[in-house]
Amino acid sequence: MKTVELKAPYLIFTGSESRPTYAKTGAGLVEWRRELCLGHLRLSGSTLDLGLPDMTVAEAKAAGIRSLVIGTALVGGRIPDDWLDILEEAVLLGLDIVAGVHSRLADIERLAKAAAKSGASLIDVRVPPAVLPVGTGKKRSGKRLLTVGTDCAVGKKYTALQLEKDMRRAGLKADFRASGQTGIMIAGQGLPIDAVISDFVSGAAELLSPDNDADHWDVIEGQGGIFHPGYSAVTMGLLVGSQPDAFVVCHEAGRTHIEGWEDFPLPTIEAVIERTILIGQLTNPNITCVGVSVNTSSLSADERGKYLADLSDRLGLPCVDALKTGTDAIVARLGKLKVA
Amino acid sequence: MKTVELKAPYLIFTGSESRPTYAKTGAGLVEWRRELCLGHLRLSGSTLDLGLPDMTVAEAKAAGIRSLVIGTALVGGRIPDDWLDILEEAVLLGLDIVAGVHSRLADIERLAKAAAKSGASLIDVRVPPAVLPVGTGKKRSGKRLLTVGTDCAVGKKYTALQLEKDMRRAGLKADFRASGQTGIMIAGQGLPIDAVISDFVSGAAELLSPDNDADHWDVIEGQGGIFHPGYSAVTMGLLVGSQPDAFVVCHEAGRTHIEGWEDFPLPTIEAVIERTILIGQLTNPNITCVGVSVNTSSLSADERGKYLADLSDRLGLPCVDALKTGTDAIVARLGKLKVA
Repeated sequence: MKTVELKAPYLIFTGSESRPTYAKTGAGLVEWRRELCLGHLRLSGSTLDLGLPDMTVAEAKAAGIRSLVIGTALVGGRIPDDWLDILEEAVLLGLDIVAGVHSRLADIERLAKAAAKSGASLIDVRVPPAVLPVGTGKKRSGKRLLTVGTDCAVGKKYTALQLEKDMRRAGLKADFRASGQTGIMIAGQGLPIDAVISDFVSGAAELLSPDNDADHWDVIEGQGGIFHPGYSAVTMGLLVGSQPDAFVVCHEAGRTHIEGWEDFPLPTIEAVIERTILIGQLTNPNITCVGVSVNTSSLSADERGKYLADLSDRLGLPCVDALKTGTDAIVARLGKLKVA
Repeated sequence: MKTVELKAPYLIFTGSESRPTYAKTGAGLVEWRRELCLGHLRLSGSTLDLGLPDMTVAEAKAAGIRSLVIGTALVGGRIPDDWLDILEEAVLLGLDIVAGVHSRLADIERLAKAAAKSGASLIDVRVPPAVLPVGTGKKRSGKRLLTVGTDCAVGKKYTALQLEKDMRRAGLKADFRASGQTGIMIAGQGLPIDAVISDFVSGAAELLSPDNDADHWDVIEGQGGIFHPGYSAVTMGLLVGSQPDAFVVCHEAGRTHIEGWEDFPLPTIEAVIERTILIGQLTNPNITCVGVSVNTSSLSADERGKYLADLSDRLGLPCVDALKTGTDAIVARLGKLKVA
């Protein structure tokens, strides 16, 4: 059984989009995997600048590019008709197409036919593999860190990516493990955990972070929230299957309620730590919290410093804003962690 | 959005099966919904006796039967070829076919064509509806009881069915709500929760027990186990979405480990109670345990009495074997329950 896997290097395709906020996937790929992004293809009129050389599909092929990655959010979730000539050309040249949209690529007849001819793959990163295991709970070799959150959309993915970067810089062996579509595009592999049938969630999480070297860290992207009225099942399965040695709680400064569920006050960071340990002990008795990462983008630099210092005093844990301060304080604590 | 729904009354079809243990679904339907089972159709040579009159498909149609229910477990999960004449005849006469097998009924061309012609439905009770909601966590009217377990296969379904029966006899308004395939066949509706995509598990559970009269009880069939290394995500989503006022812990006397996961000792009943309350409080602060139902089939009658009495002393809760002693002691406690 396998995770979703992409072939690098990439051509980032952004259609006619000019607004950076609608091209977050493409921008994220360039931000975190610059070395795998060789070219940018945009339709005439687009002013979007990803800092990559413009390339046609033919130039991409000549440059050794193996996948065209659709790097925009699509209004309505569908592939626009005026993209089809370009996508078909890419497929016929043997490039895989990678997308995270609602409509299935293989349901578009022109692309399916072209893929059958060239042998290229049409990869929907929202679609999990057809066959997944049931979780065994068996101890795997290597170490694991999971990011968890007080809510959705509080920085679990970017915290994990920054941890991977900082851990590698500190000389640790670390690999980001993606559990959502944008993460999968960035990592080049992974499993869209929230799209997995519930019986197989913890099994999928086991597949996502397999046996590894004893001193290797998988840094696993969390999903949902253990106190989330809609998504806690996903969080539970990912936690139990990941059997993390360590976890980092992600939070957004100033958020008071579960976003979109205004009847539900946000859990405290302490409550998330306690509950995560309680549940995580099922598959890893040594699970421990190694820090907190707060999205402080609503605060000034002064306020951020005070907020993080106060929080660190309160919790007795390193508290960072992964994207503003980095995660070195957490990595230092990880280095001291004794793992059985 | 709707649950899976069946049309009664039923013709129970058991092919050439003669072994009662392989016809549990059919037997369960007769046991719990005798009034909906008008006839039995078996192939020549079968000695299986469900206590129903034998009927051909044509006789069933004439008797007003609306669905043919496949009441056997299938080795390999496939519909045998020698069933197709009978199933096709039933479909052409307008009877729905109801099955809980791995192969999709609609993928069998003869049946799909016949259904297109007659307008009958091919209902796979393992297949959840295509569109399900995300859980809202909003309080619904009416009362809910959920059966939970120390493990899988400890009597959660039959305890819920016995509770429904005993509650109705005691004058309470009660409806069994099915979350698994056999339960759905018995209830005539429900949702196969373990086959739902993880993002929608708690939403599916909400759909399963909608708003109701203030004094009405939904008695919801539990799934998995909150300490189960494979299936805890299903249990979590069902618990959070069900927002139960009351729960009953199901257990099997003598079981020491999670069945099939021998590295995992069975949790104590106390641990299951504590954890279920802790998690259930997210969507119902008043959640409380009202009793325990133990499968004591490995014990003698004397041993059973002592086992249940000792357990009741230990826990301070009514403890029954739902199928051997009934659940009146639990129903009595339910009657005294104050629900906000």
